[in-house]
Amino acid sequence: MKLLIINGPNLNLLGLRQPEIYGSESMDDCLKRLRQRFPEIEIDYCQSNHEGVIIDLIHKNGMSEAGCDGIILNAGAYSHTSLAIADAIASAMVPVVEVHISNVASREPIRRVSMIGPVCHGVVAGFGLDSYRLAVEAFKEIVAR
Amino acid sequence: MKLLIINGPNLNLLGLRQPEIYGSESMDDCLKRLRQRFPEIEIDYCQSNHEGVIIDLIHKNGMSEAGCDGIILNAGAYSHTSLAIADAIASAMVPVVEVHISNVASREPIRRVSMIGPVCHGVVAGFGLDSYRLAVEAFKEIVAR
Amino acid sequence: MKLLIINGPNLNLLGLRQPEIYGSESMDDCLKRLRQRFPEIEIDYCQSNHEGVIIDLIHKNGMSEAGCDGIILNAGAYSHTSLAIADAIASAMVPVVEVHISNVASREPIRRVSMIGPVCHGVVAGFGLDSYRLAVEAFKEIVAR
Amino acid sequence: MKLLIINGPNLNLLGLRQPEIYGSESMDDCLKRLRQRFPEIEIDYCQSNHEGVIIDLIHKNGMSEAGCDGIILNAGAYSHTSLAIADAIASAMVPVVEVHISNVASREPIRRVSMIGPVCHGVVAGFGLDSYRLAVEAFKEIVAR
Amino acid sequence: MKLLIINGPNLNLLGLRQPEIYGSESMDDCLKRLRQRFPEIEIDYCQSNHEGVIIDLIHKNGMSEAGCDGIILNAGAYSHTSLAIADAIASAMVPVVEVHISNVASREPIRRVSMIGPVCHGVVAGFGLDSYRLAVEAFKEIVAR
Amino acid sequence: MKLLIINGPNLNLLGLRQPEIYGSESMDDCLKRLRQRFPEIEIDYCQSNHEGVIIDLIHKNGMSEAGCDGIILNAGAYSHTSLAIADAIASAMVPVVEVHISNVASREPIRRVSMIGPVCHGVVAGFGLDSYRLAVEAFKEIVAR
Amino acid sequence: MKLLIINGPNLNLLGLRQPEIYGSESMDDCLKRLRQRFPEIEIDYCQSNHEGVIIDLIHKNGMSEAGCDGIILNAGAYSHTSLAIADAIASAMVPVVEVHISNVASREPIRRVSMIGPVCHGVVAGFGLDSYRLAVEAFKEIVAR
Amino acid sequence: MKLLIINGPNLNLLGLRQPEIYGSESMDDCLKRLRQRFPEIEIDYCQSNHEGVIIDLIHKNGMSEAGCDGIILNAGAYSHTSLAIADAIASAMVPVVEVHISNVASREPIRRVSMIGPVCHGVVAGFGLDSYRLAVEAFKEIVAR
Amino acid sequence: MKLLIINGPNLNLLGLRQPEIYGSESMDDCLKRLRQRFPEIEIDYCQSNHEGVIIDLIHKNGMSEAGCDGIILNAGAYSHTSLAIADAIASAMVPVVEVHISNVASREPIRRVSMIGPVCHGVVAGFGLDSYRLAVEAFKEIVAR
Amino acid sequence: MKLLIINGPNLNLLGLRQPEIYGSESMDDCLKRLRQRFPEIEIDYCQSNHEGVIIDLIHKNGMSEAGCDGIILNAGAYSHTSLAIADAIASAMVPVVEVHISNVASREPIRRVSMIGPVCHGVVAGFGLDSYRLAVEAFKEIVAR
Amino acid sequence: MKLLIINGPNLNLLGLRQPEIYGSESMDDCLKRLRQRFPEIEIDYCQSNHEGVIIDLIHKNGMSEAGCDGIILNAGAYSHTSLAIADAIASAMVPVVEVHISNVASREPIRRVSMIGPVCHGVVAGFGLDSYRLAVEAFKEIVAR
Amino acid sequence: MKLLIINGPNLNLLGLRQPEIYGSESMDDCLKRLRQRFPEIEIDYCQSNHEGVIIDLIHKNGMSEAGCDGIILNAGAYSHTSLAIADAIASAMVPVVEVHISNVASREPIRRVSMIGPVCHGVVAGFGLDSYRLAVEAFKEIVAR
Repeated sequence: MKLLIINGPNLNLLGLRQPEIYGSESMDDCLKRLRQRFPEIEIDYCQSNHEGVIIDLIHKNGMSEAGCDGIILNAGAYSHTSLAIADAIASAMVPVVEVHISNVASREPIRRVSMIGPVCHGVVAGFGLDSYRLAVEAFKEIVAR
Repeated sequence: MKLLIINGPNLNLLGLRQPEIYGSESMDDCLKRLRQRFPEIEIDYCQSNHEGVIIDLIHKNGMSEAGCDGIILNAGAYSHTSLAIADAIASAMVPVVEVHISNVASREPIRRVSMIGPVCHGVVAGFGLDSYRLAVEAFKEIVAR
Repeated sequence: MKLLIINGPNLNLLGLRQPEIYGSESMDDCLKRLRQRFPEIEIDYCQSNHEGVIIDLIHKNGMSEAGCDGIILNAGAYSHTSLAIADAIASAMVPVVEVHISNVASREPIRRVSMIGPVCHGVVAGFGLDSYRLAVEAFKEIVAR
Repeated sequence: MKLLIINGPNLNLLGLRQPEIYGSESMDDCLKRLRQRFPEIEIDYCQSNHEGVIIDLIHKNGMSEAGCDGIILNAGAYSHTSLAIADAIASAMVPVVEVHISNVASREPIRRVSMIGPVCHGVVAGFGLDSYRLAVEAFKEIVAR
Repeated sequence: MKLLIINGPNLNLLGLRQPEIYGSESMDDCLKRLRQRFPEIEIDYCQSNHEGVIIDLIHKNGMSEAGCDGIILNAGAYSHTSLAIADAIASAMVPVVEVHISNVASREPIRRVSMIGPVCHGVVAGFGLDSYRLAVEAFKEIVAR
Repeated sequence: MKLLIINGPNLNLLGLRQPEIYGSESMDDCLKRLRQRFPEIEIDYCQSNHEGVIIDLIHKNGMSEAGCDGIILNAGAYSHTSLAIADAIASAMVPVVEVHISNVASREPIRRVSMIGPVCHGVVAGFGLDSYRLAVEAFKEIVAR
Repeated sequence: MKLLIINGPNLNLLGLRQPEIYGSESMDDCLKRLRQRFPEIEIDYCQSNHEGVIIDLIHKNGMSEAGCDGIILNAGAYSHTSLAIADAIASAMVPVVEVHISNVASREPIRRVSMIGPVCHGVVAGFGLDSYRLAVEAFKEIVAR
Repeated sequence: MKLLIINGPNLNLLGLRQPEIYGSESMDDCLKRLRQRFPEIEIDYCQSNHEGVIIDLIHKNGMSEAGCDGIILNAGAYSHTSLAIADAIASAMVPVVEVHISNVASREPIRRVSMIGPVCHGVVAGFGLDSYRLAVEAFKEIVAR
Repeated sequence: MKLLIINGPNLNLLGLRQPEIYGSESMDDCLKRLRQRFPEIEIDYCQSNHEGVIIDLIHKNGMSEAGCDGIILNAGAYSHTSLAIADAIASAMVPVVEVHISNVASREPIRRVSMIGPVCHGVVAGFGLDSYRLAVEAFKEIVAR
Repeated sequence: MKLLIINGPNLNLLGLRQPEIYGSESMDDCLKRLRQRFPEIEIDYCQSNHEGVIIDLIHKNGMSEAGCDGIILNAGAYSHTSLAIADAIASAMVPVVEVHISNVASREPIRRVSMIGPVCHGVVAGFGLDSYRLAVEAFKEIVAR
Repeated sequence: MKLLIINGPNLNLLGLRQPEIYGSESMDDCLKRLRQRFPEIEIDYCQSNHEGVIIDLIHKNGMSEAGCDGIILNAGAYSHTSLAIADAIASAMVPVVEVHISNVASREPIRRVSMIGPVCHGVVAGFGLDSYRLAVEAFKEIVAR
Repeated sequence: MKLLIINGPNLNLLGLRQPEIYGSESMDDCLKRLRQRFPEIEIDYCQSNHEGVIIDLIHKNGMSEAGCDGIILNAGAYSHTSLAIADAIASAMVPVVEVHISNVASREPIRRVSMIGPVCHGVVAGFGLDSYRLAVEAFKEIVAR
């Protein structure tokens, strides 16, 4: 199984900034731990602050199972404003799971509604970087079916 | 570790009705599988169609770690209308994880905002009954910390 | 044919309070008259001020035609606030007809929209206690088909 | 007793179009059946796609009991947009019962609120063409009082 | 000077219905008094319950001063719903004064905003049938300029 | 008959500023003309930019017919924001007529709804300074009754 | 191929009024040019200020291909307020193309949403009277399929 | 005089949880003090997390002065969501005073509007547990009249 | 203890106007009774129809305990519109209790939300002039702490 | 004449994905057909998923007629969210025609309002890939003028 | 050059209250520093808690350059509620610059929109008392042009 | 001191387009003047039409004082739509000042609220290109503290 984790805007700062919201672990540590825990799964990773790049990534990897078996997407602030990313997800062939590090429901009103939620397979939010692990766990079942 | 799963209104019908939304597995099967998979965890289960009973359950079990170490709450339709359950969660001492079987974000507008979300620890939604397993997985990390 | 009439919150006060809105006839009189008028139909009756009890009643009686052939539901104020009762109706096997004694459209704005309306078969409102008779009349056709 | 049924815009197409919403029976069949069932009641019928004509009809027939004893009004789409028809009903002397063939509550949001509802005596909606029969049944009680 | 008074829907009932809102004087009496008081002004009068007829009347009489020097329009309920009448007024060459018998500001919310107000010259409302006299008074100044 | 004209904020600038909205005539000229035209009526005049002063004036002059027989109030911007002036009008014994020089309906949205409208007797708006004359005309009828 | 162009309220004034919005060409010129350009297509034309007449026209011509092969509808202001015309279009058998002369998106907010848009085949707006030619061009493809 | 204090959801936790909002005194202490301070008044007390139970309590105690002379109701979160409790209060014969421990106006927006407020006699909020004493003080006057 | 009662706009009319809303007792009587009942408390009183004067009063008396120990503020209509008074309260050193004579929750929607509520200590509303006594009672506890 | 067609996000997938919405023809086929049909017009084409690139393209090509004579823009999801593209269009020298393949009015609410519509010359939507041909047809007239 | 600084409600408390929002410097210190820094500019200063006084000040000083060359206005809470001050600014002859000490955009929603903003020349907000200096700097350029 | 000026979408056109809104000076002239006026400050400059590039720039330059001492950001249309840029600012270590050339408050409603405002240090808007100078002036104080 091959999964692609896509992180959106500002998530390159993970571990460097606002630890009270995002914790102090870096994404590198997180990926390392994920790959140790799930040696049977190939886990790719991309981060971009560009809405267009995220769309390109979904197109390139999500249009057939040759690309990957599933996408774990933390679209950051774009989750709440990007209809274009939602359209990209809607046209993808592989399932996309929405992930958030913080519990977005407890933040500002604009973060309480996800624009990409309706076209994703499911959502995991609020568990810190462990949200990514739970999304991988979820894919193990999704792909099994 | 001891976890309490609380299911809210209409979830007693799981496996009996609307399989296109909720799947055809019953909650009994789900619990059996959870207990097999996590033998080290004591998993209790309650279901009620009564808002007040759900509040009582949270009070009785969530006020100290003597009750349990965490609550997995699928409050069904009350997730979107009950400020009283949200208040109960806010006053609980143990973490509460919000769970939904279906991807609520893709259903009617009233289901896109959770009234209990802001006071929960995190949310897992959209993975069918596997959402419960992911919530248990989440608690393994939460309690470890 | 067997029908179940479920009355919701405050409707135990029928004939005792606010006759300018609800008339001065009691529900007992109404049921007596209904049973006289429709001797071929078995008409059961329940009233509860508890949202959860109403859901339980729908589950117990509406999941198969063994329970009853149809439900006449005057959910009172819950008509406008209870997504959980709406979910119960949506999962019922037998048709549910929404009934109101007063003309809810001419009262406060919150009463102009019914939350359970979209999942009911139809609605009869504004004819005083005669609304129940009309609902029974309606079921004669519904079941005939 | 004399009743006037007024049908509003597009209802001349009953039985010809969109049977999935309005059924396949024509209004003529419906009227024939009504007159057979209620031989003691004189039932007149008009249909117009013109808002102004509907107002004229209410004025002409509803200003005194010489015109008729009651009006059964299916104002179609005008139910949701016409304040002018609502004003005409408000100034009528005979009761007006609002009727809909489909369960308007389960259609688009604009159809969930009736502009004429607050000035009608009551509403019957969702029972197909049988809604007209139920409205006639309702008038038997209304006039009896 | 020649003025055209156009009355909209339900205003044919003036003096016959709802005297608590519209008074008990008929429009005929009102016109008689206006013509006596302003013998130098030719005052024409039309009433229609049809939105389209009102538009036709504005087109026929308001496109040049040959038609009339001004229009006094009490569009009744259409004041609050008809963008089409507003468009007709916007394309008229002669000034149009909006008139209401009752104080619309003190009635239901929908009557607090006039859709035709922005394209009228001015408004007189709340003085009973005397509102028409005040509108004629207004035109004496408007035309004088 | 004695009338009091109260002008609200910024109306001391009439004739000095923004002639494209308010014309170039001053309030002094307007008052002079009014007094000439209606010699039988005593016309008092006050202007204030202070909300509180306008309330004081209504209290002092409007609580009994000893004060005056009617108030002509152009509350300017306070028409749209002052619930306190509306309360003062509601407690006045003499009728208050709302006046606007410009056609407020055709300006910004906030000016389309009057907060004082519901408690005034009627409104005259859009006729330039002639609006004041029309209000005096209106009072001749109001007081006659 | 036979097409019916229906123009709604105020469009009888084309070329006579508000040339800054609608241009100075009349509809007659436009029709003449269309018939010259598309001699193989029979182009009928109706205009009405009456909502009801427009509904009648759609019923009469759009219920079968015997009537016509398509309708080009410029419903003017009714585009934004008439649910009844939308219902008529929804029940038509032939495709209806929505046309506007001006770029409605750049006018008042109420004109930014079309009530008939969701049930039309497509929309052409903003090209002056050339919008009609483009609609005819569109039908050449639609019918070809 | 006999008063009934009804506490709603989560108020069984008073003194145990969230002292920063609700203080650290328990309801038992509060009741003891009230009874000492007002020995001439019989003060009963109930608490429930169930909306339906609160309605039952109002019915049982508030339908006649035999039940009690007044109800002091702290409906907690139900104050903001329960139309059914509001209906129960509206049908009660004895006055109901709304009480809140915290200053609800300074909390989340949903707590700024009370659904039960319009049918209560008055409200006391923000004085901690002393709010109950003030409500009792209020009843001394209410009953005296 | 020294308390200052500030009454806002139109409250100088207490006992003179609208007794159905505000009762027939004057503020003088009310103050006399308060001073008799609480001889140990110095009770000052001011009334103004001017928003600015109310702010000045809060500044002059509420900035230190030298001014007074607490303010009882019935800001009348300004309660619902004045952010400036709310800012004055927010900067005061002594607690401010909001008071209303009528049950504002049962009046127009604009009166259901208080702009000053979030910065006040608490609110007492709906008990007629007795609301002032209850506020004084409240201060006895507040200051005691 | 030289035209530039700009396609926005996800439109690189045309013909590959969601044929039920976008048809099964690819943009290449469409361009080929356009160039065959309009050999006298130079038709350039760009597609990007990047909002910024679309702005750059408008700047580079639309600032003078040296760039091109007109732009045909299908901004996809950015049509509904990008104020920045709207600003770019507003500053362009050449006309921009908005194009949509599907009938956006019949899709989700967010797609019913175009943010770029007010600054475009006109719109063609709902005709599948034929929408592009109609836009080219439109430009033939626009440039001719 | 002569500038007038007008401070609105509660700004007389600068340096005395809420230093966490407004800093601890007094307006006197600020003025002293401004006059030292800009000796070539005459800087007048007024503060009032009265909306009407602020309007009077703008009228008296802003109607001609004899009054002053520009006004620096910190209208405090009135910035967000006073249409009357906005009207005064709109009629002023000299430019008015809006100033805020705190960053109003980061406070409550009501402070995110300025009612006077649309008629001011520009705004400086969030720099503490240095906002006044920046406004003076701005006027040096404005007047130079 | 080192400052970075970032200009967002369409601001590369400064001096070339829409001089009625943005003036006719180019950004190059502006920068030249700034550097002459503030020789002691190093002023860098970037412009991009890409939301992602602006985020990258803030990350690269704003994460430590090694990058720069402050950022002057004119995010153009992204000010009103980009939550992602707001997040980038929130995580920056150096202060960011929001700048607008035009008085955004006087333009369309969408431009009256800034999405980045709450996380910026302050705002300067409406002074043409002089807004940049004022922002530099502001930083002299900010950094001095």
